[in-house]
Amino acid sequence: MTVKVFNGGIMMADKIKESELPYYAVIFSSERTDGENGYGKMAEKMVELAAKQEGFLGVESARDEQLGITVSYWQSLEAIQKWKDHAAHQIAQERGKKEWYQTFSLRVCKVERHRFFEM
Amino acid sequence: MTVKVFNGGIMMADKIKESELPYYAVIFSSERTDGENGYGKMAEKMVELAAKQEGFLGVESARDEQLGITVSYWQSLEAIQKWKDHAAHQIAQERGKKEWYQTFSLRVCKVERHRFFEM
Repeated sequence: MTVKVFNGGIMMADKIKESELPYYAVIFSSERTDGENGYGKMAEKMVELAAKQEGFLGVESARDEQLGITVSYWQSLEAIQKWKDHAAHQIAQERGKKEWYQTFSLRVCKVERHRFFEM
Repeated sequence: MTVKVFNGGIMMADKIKESELPYYAVIFSSERTDGENGYGKMAEKMVELAAKQEGFLGVESARDEQLGITVSYWQSLEAIQKWKDHAAHQIAQERGKKEWYQTFSLRVCKVERHRFFEM
């Protein structure tokens, strides 16, 4: 599974096959604290590590001054749970709560339909 | 339903009550064309209009150089369908395909779990 990282940002997730439907999305929205505090490096590492997990289908992320949104896609709820419990990810989650985020929300969703457009 | 628009960006969606679960999310990811072409004004209008629709629960949006992600939350699939078919939104959709987006993806998801954190 490749993740397109460009200029520090993550590009749109690759098209996911119809046959994967239904699959799962984790929507992570966050408002950052001031300052970098090692966030960028850790975020990049976590994306690389997530992409190696079983059941990972893709990730996309955008951040502006107000808000960051990262959506990761997974084959199953079990794959999401395993990633949540991953030791290195647990450490990142703790640092996130202590250093990087003012507020965040997490949603686990079942993707029922998808469409991809290229103009 | 209020939407927090700040400095041209949209803040995190208000907390949605547990009793709304399960609800629906529409994940819209897009890569823009070059140039403004009236995009910002129309995007703002569409958010204001969406917020007035029956069954609308919230919206959040982030955009950086690579990618934009907008997630809107709805009480039902019927509410999503009505918003898709809304005349003014249809016009925006057409302009999006012709002028504003290089590529985009749309996903309709059932939100099964959510958590909100304030540090």
